[in-house]
Amino acid sequence: LTSRLPAVGTTVFTRMSTLAAQANAVNLGQGFPDFACERSLLQAVNDAMQADFNQYPMMTGAPVLRQAIVAKIAAIYGHQYDVDTDITVTAGATQALTTAILCCVHPGDEVIVIEPSYDSYVPAITLAGGVPVLVQMEAGAQGYTVPWSAVAAAVNGKTRLIIINTPHNPTGSVLRAADLQALADIVRGTDVLILSDEVYEHMVYDGQRHESVCRHPELAARAFVVSSFGKTYHVTGWKIGYVAAPAALSAEFRKVHQYNVFSVNTPMQHGIASYMADPKPYLELPAFYQRKRDLFREGLQHSRFELLPADGTYFQCVRYDKISTQTEAQFAEWLTTEIKVAAIPVSAFYQQGKESGIVRFCFAKKDETLALALERLGKV
Amino acid sequence: LTSRLPAVGTTVFTRMSTLAAQANAVNLGQGFPDFACERSLLQAVNDAMQADFNQYPMMTGAPVLRQAIVAKIAAIYGHQYDVDTDITVTAGATQALTTAILCCVHPGDEVIVIEPSYDSYVPAITLAGGVPVLVQMEAGAQGYTVPWSAVAAAVNGKTRLIIINTPHNPTGSVLRAADLQALADIVRGTDVLILSDEVYEHMVYDGQRHESVCRHPELAARAFVVSSFGKTYHVTGWKIGYVAAPAALSAEFRKVHQYNVFSVNTPMQHGIASYMADPKPYLELPAFYQRKRDLFREGLQHSRFELLPADGTYFQCVRYDKISTQTEAQFAEWLTTEIKVAAIPVSAFYQQGKESGIVRFCFAKKDETLALALERLGKV
Ligand SMILES: CSCCC(=O)C(=O)O
Ligand SMILES: CSCCC(=O)C(=O)O
Repeated sequence: LTSRLPAVGTTVFTRMSTLAAQANAVNLGQGFPDFACERSLLQAVNDAMQADFNQYPMMTGAPVLRQAIVAKIAAIYGHQYDVDTDITVTAGATQALTTAILCCVHPGDEVIVIEPSYDSYVPAITLAGGVPVLVQMEAGAQGYTVPWSAVAAAVNGKTRLIIINTPHNPTGSVLRAADLQALADIVRGTDVLILSDEVYEHMVYDGQRHESVCRHPELAARAFVVSSFGKTYHVTGWKIGYVAAPAALSAEFRKVHQYNVFSVNTPMQHGIASYMADPKPYLELPAFYQRKRDLFREGLQHSRFELLPADGTYFQCVRYDKISTQTEAQFAEWLTTEIKVAAIPVSAFYQQGKESGIVRFCFAKKDETLALALERLGKV
Repeated sequence: LTSRLPAVGTTVFTRMSTLAAQANAVNLGQGFPDFACERSLLQAVNDAMQADFNQYPMMTGAPVLRQAIVAKIAAIYGHQYDVDTDITVTAGATQALTTAILCCVHPGDEVIVIEPSYDSYVPAITLAGGVPVLVQMEAGAQGYTVPWSAVAAAVNGKTRLIIINTPHNPTGSVLRAADLQALADIVRGTDVLILSDEVYEHMVYDGQRHESVCRHPELAARAFVVSSFGKTYHVTGWKIGYVAAPAALSAEFRKVHQYNVFSVNTPMQHGIASYMADPKPYLELPAFYQRKRDLFREGLQHSRFELLPADGTYFQCVRYDKISTQTEAQFAEWLTTEIKVAAIPVSAFYQQGKESGIVRFCFAKKDETLALALERLGKV
């Protein structure tokens, strides 16, 4: 059996979570909360099961959930999607991303990926027969930024898709209105599509606003916008997300979707739809996570870790060059097994394994968990 | 946007279910039960949610569920899979099938598909850049059979995969031990892999046994075997299935799986695992559905429909040439809108839309639903 993905091993998240469990370490590696979600959300799913919403939903998603998604996007970002033609519910954001790539990337097409990047993008492009074209973010005092001139230089007649991710995993940087303007200038007059990974859309801090592609009609008209209920509602294991895209793009997305997963868990969709009637849970999310971010940053303020800016997501990147000259993978492993706090090496988000002397911590944890991790990290 | 799947429209199941709803018809089209699943299964899922099994499960599936699957396969088919390396839990059987195809079919590889065939196989092959090679089943007095000599003739150096499906959708035929022997003879000494769609494994009637590929070590050694909890436990909307395959095949499957969906709904996996401790639900399934099959067949005995054999699945195919000369699509539409009983045209399971004058009914319905449908069909 000749591999279709010869370069692929087990994801860094699985490897570090396994190591964390073996080492009995506090797991600040893989991004997931260690606290419980709201009981009313569980109740809503159970109600849906008891009401016999257990058979195939519509292939595109339960209408009540698509309606709730459209209403939310209109309320927050002012963009009006069509419930019937523009929204498709997916088995998590990863499935949305991979399906979007599979539906529009033909063999030989180029896809611009901005590194560091989430680890599923490039394998999905490879599966489609596409060619990833890597553009490196620039790291400055203000944190990581996208060099749009380099993106512009990478665009050519073969470019099919540009993948962006804001708030950005792993760096925690967020795109500003000027970034989206620069992107719009690049794609104007071309056939290039946008895939916008916005799974951390409700985790932007310090009063900044999330610059969703949905706020920018010119971009939204050619974009697949992906989000995740797992991230927003503290249920990463439910694997429900969605893609919003104009009808023509959604039609192609759905052709692949219907033969990839056909449809998505019915009671979960109904439960989430009824829970979404109250906007409070996602409106309160920035304050909720900003508090945890600040708590975590304060705890490391006087450590030998150097804190990078963290404007969004639930990740905090730290530079460790005052502590060690190890590679990021070695250092993350050492932190996990010796200090008993698991982290993710940022090098795992680069195809060539670029070393920046930075690891990523996830602060989506109980205050006690963060306190224990900080106590251990303080000793480093 | 140039389509990756230009030939694909909306699936026949979605189209007929939509038409059935519009026409207020009894929906015997799309295959799903209209009765409730067992309450203890819902309870088990709710227990898992309440116990906070709501974050990412292992990428390969919750260990408790993989253990339950291995135990079940060993108990029924006598084949011992490895819990860690051989089982991967999927977001339904469709995702398992498509992922298996994507992980082993390279551009230009040939895949043998036996028609009529489930409608996801060919689009998945097309997405992978593979070439579907179609072999037609033969329809005789004993029902549909696979002409193994034609399969053998279709195998060449480019053949990567043969897809089989038993019990067979839509024909309700089941493979016998001699069929699997013939298949083993064909692939022996080649690199050809097998993808065995066995989602109706617990629906085989009249005392026959299901000839799972798992019963045949020589085939199991090169096979992806796919099943579906949605079919087995009357919860088609939960979208949980699995693939069982030897370690080397599973390793490649997982490379694609982890970047396609990453992992599968956690509380559903735990709920199903605990429900599986009792084998009764699936052991009782043949008798449960055989009763419904017999009820449905008896109801049509004196109608102008000609009943085809129905040895497995929850589908009954009927020939309608004494009633109409319409195409199958026209006839199914007419049945739905005029007679108010929805069916699926079997032509939808052929790439070239081959007409056999046959439509498919799903008898996985409450007795009252079947009675109402029979009353209406009796008037035709
Ligand atoms: C799908 S597991 C990875 C979770 C995540 O988004 C991350 O840790 O970056
Ligand atoms: C995934 S919808 C189709 C259900 C089914 O298996 C069938 O009706 O054949």
